[in-house]
Amino acid sequence: MDGKEPKEELDILIEGGKLITMAEGNEIIENPRIGIAGGRIVFVESGLPESSKAYVAAEAIDARGCIVMPGLINTHTHLPMVCFRGMADDLPLMSWLNDHIFPAEARYVNRDMAYAGSLLAMAEMVLSGTTTFCDSYFFESSVAHAAMTAGMRAVVALGFIDIQVLDSPEPSRQREIAEGFINRWRNRAPLVSPALCCHSPYTCSPETLKTVEKVASKAGVPFVIHLAETKEEIHLIEERHNRTPIGHLRDLAILDEKTVAVHCNWLSEEDMDIMAAADVKVCHNPESNMKLAAGMAPVPSLIDRGIRVGLGTDGCASNNDLDMFREMGTTARIHKVIEMDPTVMDAATVLKMATIDGARVLGIDDRTGSIEPGKEADIILVDLRRPHLTPVHNCRSQLVYAASGADVTTSIIGGKIVMKDRRLLTIDVNAAMSEVRKIAAVISSDRP
Amino acid sequence: MDGKEPKEELDILIEGGKLITMAEGNEIIENPRIGIAGGRIVFVESGLPESSKAYVAAEAIDARGCIVMPGLINTHTHLPMVCFRGMADDLPLMSWLNDHIFPAEARYVNRDMAYAGSLLAMAEMVLSGTTTFCDSYFFESSVAHAAMTAGMRAVVALGFIDIQVLDSPEPSRQREIAEGFINRWRNRAPLVSPALCCHSPYTCSPETLKTVEKVASKAGVPFVIHLAETKEEIHLIEERHNRTPIGHLRDLAILDEKTVAVHCNWLSEEDMDIMAAADVKVCHNPESNMKLAAGMAPVPSLIDRGIRVGLGTDGCASNNDLDMFREMGTTARIHKVIEMDPTVMDAATVLKMATIDGARVLGIDDRTGSIEPGKEADIILVDLRRPHLTPVHNCRSQLVYAASGADVTTSIIGGKIVMKDRRLLTIDVNAAMSEVRKIAAVISSDRP
Repeated sequence: MDGKEPKEELDILIEGGKLITMAEGNEIIENPRIGIAGGRIVFVESGLPESSKAYVAAEAIDARGCIVMPGLINTHTHLPMVCFRGMADDLPLMSWLNDHIFPAEARYVNRDMAYAGSLLAMAEMVLSGTTTFCDSYFFESSVAHAAMTAGMRAVVALGFIDIQVLDSPEPSRQREIAEGFINRWRNRAPLVSPALCCHSPYTCSPETLKTVEKVASKAGVPFVIHLAETKEEIHLIEERHNRTPIGHLRDLAILDEKTVAVHCNWLSEEDMDIMAAADVKVCHNPESNMKLAAGMAPVPSLIDRGIRVGLGTDGCASNNDLDMFREMGTTARIHKVIEMDPTVMDAATVLKMATIDGARVLGIDDRTGSIEPGKEADIILVDLRRPHLTPVHNCRSQLVYAASGADVTTSIIGGKIVMKDRRLLTIDVNAAMSEVRKIAAVISSDRP
Repeated sequence: MDGKEPKEELDILIEGGKLITMAEGNEIIENPRIGIAGGRIVFVESGLPESSKAYVAAEAIDARGCIVMPGLINTHTHLPMVCFRGMADDLPLMSWLNDHIFPAEARYVNRDMAYAGSLLAMAEMVLSGTTTFCDSYFFESSVAHAAMTAGMRAVVALGFIDIQVLDSPEPSRQREIAEGFINRWRNRAPLVSPALCCHSPYTCSPETLKTVEKVASKAGVPFVIHLAETKEEIHLIEERHNRTPIGHLRDLAILDEKTVAVHCNWLSEEDMDIMAAADVKVCHNPESNMKLAAGMAPVPSLIDRGIRVGLGTDGCASNNDLDMFREMGTTARIHKVIEMDPTVMDAATVLKMATIDGARVLGIDDRTGSIEPGKEADIILVDLRRPHLTPVHNCRSQLVYAASGADVTTSIIGGKIVMKDRRLLTIDVNAAMSEVRKIAAVISSDRP
């Protein structure tokens, strides 16, 4: 430094470690420097010692010994369900739903529960490296408010279902309520964006599906739908419409590039061709699908067809955690044994699903999913100086096969540090746990 | 306390939290008190406030907010392979073995590497709640010495294979070396016990299998063997012996209650009947089997037949970590989706596999695997006061589906505290990481 160059003013400067950008080319940069200002990444450079550039940064983050990477993107969850974590496991699917989950939802879910549950879920997500999520549940505005508190990037999908339950709107008001929700959240908070969700083709009439999809399409927001999750669903739709679920939606003319098809465990070759042609996005939730014995999406075939697939945890009643690192490890392993081919779903592919392809699924890849100048700064640090992450022969393998959420030490969302040295800066974690314990105590005391 | 009762002198007193004993009946005791003296559990009681008993304990452990449970038992691993963690992933099985693992073993494995790798592996295991392991690798005495340093309970199985590689003994010396190893380690260290391992029925001749098994049987130690791991093995043994691998060993009269059959991914109904009749033990390694696309053991059917099944991680080249909590979560989930039945492999069953049934598989259930008076004290504490473990509707679900190794805060082995507040007390973790990094650096610099 000769003192003559103008000094660049930064909010945050990250230096050292190994950077996985997930940008095109997906290289690994040793000893990087990443500058962040105004919420955005302003530069990414390899920190050669001879670099003469000088920076003034309000906050310097020493990333030596760490992997620096984009924050993980959980493309499908139902956050308030953390209140039901462990409440009903190892049960037949229909008993789980009808005897446990549905009654508990009818009885205990309300605006305050949705906020409290979401906030605790966000504490868990931030502590395990997730910076963006897409949620669909009841009282979705409570989830959005919690995201504003937590400083998380959120796609909040208002839910529609043709059963009068909790805050689900009656058919005649669907369009008005869908439009109202989008208008309300469109420009309300920089990190929050709205979406719409139809529960499924077996719980939503063709009219509901068409109405809600039309509003989403017009507004250019994601249209989320649970699709082809179970064999039972396939039989139901076959009976009712003489189609596969995918064929049914195609015939309703509601499949397009904004469709986020969640699960997709039971697909025919023709279904996959239809999805590829319509540029439908897929959200894969392997741990939930395994635990509920729902089935398993043919992800290698989907990716072969060029379909974008993101990863999700689903809700805590069927997972029972929100750790995207575990979801990555499971994704990499489950398809190998199902296809009997250890080369499918390699670590690089799985990392892509959990970052940039997750952003593409949600239509926010212009803003997040990779570390590149111009993008908003959603960045995590994973500390490799731990026995289970030593030695480091391959960074990507380490992240997918050996790391867990607990190895994330720092998390930055939209250019703000929300967790540092595993301390949450936006959420009072003890208060968040205490609130959910109170809700759980009521549930427990009511149950036999 | 009236001052008149004699005070019981303890080494350690654990008080508070929730105790899962894994003893017969498998109850959960709220606010327990566990007394430890002379390496053993001297009492287990529910800590009612009116209890008048008084104790003098050298060390008191406050378990409030925690689950207290038996340490986990990793029934199958190759610890020195941590040096190869992430070195070769996502490859076809034969290329993985022949182009990567075997050459690396021939070149880099030696006495010192085995010690350094094992010690780091033990740091990882203790930090993730494992207190006992069964290892089979080259230079097994190095693994035993590392266990003595770490203070871990170890079953060290000396390996036999009919290929002249590293320290594998030539056939004429097998009996002498097997007996020598058992005599050497039989009463050497209180936590270490010897066993013998034949690599597999396709790499060991019938003579080798019989010789080694005879020594194991006479000495009453476990006879460990990789069995029915891949389809290729089934074909090979069919070609050579016109039998299944199980049928082949049965015909050699070497299956009995001390046989630890590792993997067992490809079994016929008849194989399972033979195993049940001979009281063969099974070790299940789901994450390794998934990652290598080897196959998947029919564990629910084995358990239905009364066969004892333990859990293992296998080595770090095929997992790539040693976290038994992750292995539990995967075990609970994978069989549900394979059987398309969400009720199989419930949390209680999986916990049993990772604790008391693991001890039974290794023939050490008189000493460990549950928390009962008279047993040696192998105990861990899992801290539930974390977002991803809140709320607590069901302790067993929490451990199997949501906890990870990083949630273990304290670990006691043979009545000695080896980890407290996540600080290792027997292993210099930085030195252990540094040693393995040096080995990995040599490997990396040699490879293209």
